[in-house]
Amino acid sequence: MNVEVLGLVAGGLTSIASMPQLIKVIKTKNVEDISWLMLVILIVGLSLWVWYGIQQDELPIILSNAFAVLVNLSLFICYLIFREK
Amino acid sequence: MNVEVLGLVAGGLTSIASMPQLIKVIKTKNVEDISWLMLVILIVGLSLWVWYGIQQDELPIILSNAFAVLVNLSLFICYLIFREK
Repeated sequence: MNVEVLGLVAGGLTSIASMPQLIKVIKTKNVEDISWLMLVILIVGLSLWVWYGIQQDELPIILSNAFAVLVNLSLFICYLIFREK
Repeated sequence: MNVEVLGLVAGGLTSIASMPQLIKVIKTKNVEDISWLMLVILIVGLSLWVWYGIQQDELPIILSNAFAVLVNLSLFICYLIFREK
């Protein structure tokens, strides 16, 4: 497989991975079993990956991680909203 | 920051991100709010990142994603064990 395509598929999968979790949380409004620390570390780490991608000039890394930051940030906001429930 | 160091820090954070979640699941034995679909997509995606890293010969990508595969695989096994609870 072309390495650019491989990167895009890998990046596509890891960026959309948190989507089912976000949908589940929005549906059930339950976040009790989710670790907020995971979300915080993930958001910081993914943001650094975006920066790494910019430095290395690798588009799959930039795009996939930027999208993943957005999804996990939404998840963290949901966590803050629903944790009192 | 040196781009290799940046990659290692970014990779370090995204690899350990799931650790607090794994510890929480082992402690509480509760996986009700966790999306199994997220774990499956993540494991496939992270494995493809390892392959991408091998092709691009980028050690931070290989190491961090290989570790993340292990943690998320453990999380998925815990999910399968505790879901009936």
